[in-house]
Amino acid sequence: MTRKIFLSEKDMPRQWYNIAADLPTPLQPPLGPDGHPITPDMLAPVFPMNLIEQEVSTDRWIDIPEDVLDKLAIWRPSPLYRATGLEAALGCPVKIYYKNEGVSPAGSHKPNTSIPQAYYNKVFGIKKLTTETGAGQWGSALSMACAMYGLECKVFMVRISFEQKPFRKLLMAAWGGTCVPSPSQETQAGRDVLAKFPDTPGSLGIAISEAIEAAVQNDDTRYSLGSVLNHVMLHQTIIGLEAKKQMEIAGDYPDVIIGCAGGGSNFAGLAFPYALDKINGKDIDIIPVEPAACPTLTRAPFVYDHGDLAKMTPLLPMHSLGHDFIPQPIHAGGLRYHGMAPLVSNLVQSGVFRPMSIHQTDCYKAALTWARCEGFISAPETAHALAAVVREALKAKEEGKEKTILFNWSGHGLMDLVGYDKYLSGELQDIEPSDAEMACGLSCLEGLPKPN
Amino acid sequence: MTRKIFLSEKDMPRQWYNIAADLPTPLQPPLGPDGHPITPDMLAPVFPMNLIEQEVSTDRWIDIPEDVLDKLAIWRPSPLYRATGLEAALGCPVKIYYKNEGVSPAGSHKPNTSIPQAYYNKVFGIKKLTTETGAGQWGSALSMACAMYGLECKVFMVRISFEQKPFRKLLMAAWGGTCVPSPSQETQAGRDVLAKFPDTPGSLGIAISEAIEAAVQNDDTRYSLGSVLNHVMLHQTIIGLEAKKQMEIAGDYPDVIIGCAGGGSNFAGLAFPYALDKINGKDIDIIPVEPAACPTLTRAPFVYDHGDLAKMTPLLPMHSLGHDFIPQPIHAGGLRYHGMAPLVSNLVQSGVFRPMSIHQTDCYKAALTWARCEGFISAPETAHALAAVVREALKAKEEGKEKTILFNWSGHGLMDLVGYDKYLSGELQDIEPSDAEMACGLSCLEGLPKPN
Repeated sequence: MTRKIFLSEKDMPRQWYNIAADLPTPLQPPLGPDGHPITPDMLAPVFPMNLIEQEVSTDRWIDIPEDVLDKLAIWRPSPLYRATGLEAALGCPVKIYYKNEGVSPAGSHKPNTSIPQAYYNKVFGIKKLTTETGAGQWGSALSMACAMYGLECKVFMVRISFEQKPFRKLLMAAWGGTCVPSPSQETQAGRDVLAKFPDTPGSLGIAISEAIEAAVQNDDTRYSLGSVLNHVMLHQTIIGLEAKKQMEIAGDYPDVIIGCAGGGSNFAGLAFPYALDKINGKDIDIIPVEPAACPTLTRAPFVYDHGDLAKMTPLLPMHSLGHDFIPQPIHAGGLRYHGMAPLVSNLVQSGVFRPMSIHQTDCYKAALTWARCEGFISAPETAHALAAVVREALKAKEEGKEKTILFNWSGHGLMDLVGYDKYLSGELQDIEPSDAEMACGLSCLEGLPKPN
Repeated sequence: MTRKIFLSEKDMPRQWYNIAADLPTPLQPPLGPDGHPITPDMLAPVFPMNLIEQEVSTDRWIDIPEDVLDKLAIWRPSPLYRATGLEAALGCPVKIYYKNEGVSPAGSHKPNTSIPQAYYNKVFGIKKLTTETGAGQWGSALSMACAMYGLECKVFMVRISFEQKPFRKLLMAAWGGTCVPSPSQETQAGRDVLAKFPDTPGSLGIAISEAIEAAVQNDDTRYSLGSVLNHVMLHQTIIGLEAKKQMEIAGDYPDVIIGCAGGGSNFAGLAFPYALDKINGKDIDIIPVEPAACPTLTRAPFVYDHGDLAKMTPLLPMHSLGHDFIPQPIHAGGLRYHGMAPLVSNLVQSGVFRPMSIHQTDCYKAALTWARCEGFISAPETAHALAAVVREALKAKEEGKEKTILFNWSGHGLMDLVGYDKYLSGELQDIEPSDAEMACGLSCLEGLPKPN
């Protein structure tokens, strides 16, 4: 049996798919501090205008520049795999396919958007990008892209991760990126936090505030975000567009589609091209999987909220735990975010997606089974998708139904092995916010506008 | 321009190439403690008979079992890349191609032999494998293979690496392998060393002695080695056999072939199928690259020597620095071995290969250039091949000759970033043994038989 299906470079998608053109209910606009929709001009100090145009576009197809295709071709098209080892281990009536996004130089799906973001900034005349990073995946992916386009890259890394994950910092340095712990003394936002809480471990919310501040104060500098925004989802759709071609070669069509979701981008990348089929009448179960410790889609409301703690971002229409909700320190750092991409949130509201939450011990259990029959070591984030795959396979067995499952193996965990060690030595705990903690997180939303 | 050439699984080689059938001068036999050639039976407590048969075979082609092909298909055929980014950065009249062996779950070429070794042990009825590991690449690759075949795996890891590289140990644990620091209290060899030198950092030579001792004392246990031996070189030839098909698709044939060489296996894997063409009259420059700190091929003689410090292995006809030579602690741990595969040594003697040594700062310099134009982070070992590629490209420019270079990108360095950090902060030193140190290492060869 064939394990994997390659596409040749000449069959790479030449356009990204923009689901904004096909939403069952329209996307509500981001709002400014005055409660009115923001205009593209208001975003101009933060992002280059060519990316702002993508952010607000409702064109269904957007051309991928030739130079971006050339760089993406370093690892794309990514292989589509049949997980024959897991199928045998589970003994359920399912065929399991997955896209392997771990083959990129940074080891995850993140370069799918860091490359085009660096490209568009470069052609717009920008010299330097700033960003934040939690576990370090995004900071490394952007450092790599900046190296390829001759841009400077400055990364504000959540301080506790900066200290606990020294190798991520070295990786960014190898690609020429500069990484500082956040909060830092380099921005007003950072200095304010340090004055009040000199020992703070930092948070993604603070780091975003610092990165935006560092960008807007220089004309030749812009900010770059690795998830949540519309143009990021757009760039990731190359995953699902390739998958559709490869599944066609395999002669199969998925009944179930699964991806882990923190800000939503790797999930969206695989799911959006199939969501179009579902909107057009196909019967597909499309599942974003989140940690029980950070249950944005499964327990939090659809609201208008800020993307960062210091409320520097516009208000976005999204599922949110509240911008000052601090998720417990689970190992899947990439899934510890209080909000969710507006496009993903919109399609959850429309019933196109069926979110699911899973505890971390279930995830590591699935990841170990996977490692021992499929070989690859999964990122802790990706392990959430694996656990959902196992759950759906067992459900198919219970129901006596044959199913085809397709999921996104979003990245490898070779630089995140501590969680495996904790799981193997029985130290890992399952955690979820209490109702009181949920209510406390949501209290910061009082007084903000509500979506329709 | 196309960046990479995939082969489909159905075009995977079905047979390994055994260069023992085509050597210009015959391979001299391994010798026992009495100075006489050892017989297959004498190896039976250490290896299963099916692998011993491969070790001594002179059949040109050896079938790859279907089940091994199925497991190798998790990442094979590995892509052949055109390094267009490096070509542009160097501006030399060269086309540069490389095989990407970093796509395996363990991140290197090592699983090409760990999978078949686990398979042959399994079908021979063995329940457990023991091995040694230096930096940890081989120990992880064997742990993964054992997980897939339901074998126990016990790894003796050089103590200083065990302490300095805790993540490699966690990686082995994720695949179910057990890893102990060597020297250990579990073997007589280990206890003897600890009694004399309680604070020893360990060495590959000691770890090999322990792993062999642990294997021979149990009927259901055998030893597994990740390089040097004939059957290991055999299993790696799948790299070069695939490369030949892919280069044919590319419409090119290499003038220069390059691979880094510690025990010799990744180099041999790419080079042997082309060496056959050279033996048959083709004009190819085939270059094994070693560290100047461990100059086995470039400064050490062709002798009979043991593979380990405790002299538990047979005497092998090879280039050797002497079995008690302790290489300086360079970052390319996989290239710190006193000997070299007999098959590679034999072909150096015949003039088929032209060895080269390079200092480590040159290697990191090349690896940084590579990371910033090709994306991938190279293992410190692989960086030696990169530095040689740069050197050969500049030579082609000097000579005004157009050349096609093919090299083996043997693995990624995502778990070995400390060397990059040292290089970037200017702490890295170039080291090479003095003539006196060379003479001292070779003095242990006195009284041993000499090859013809």
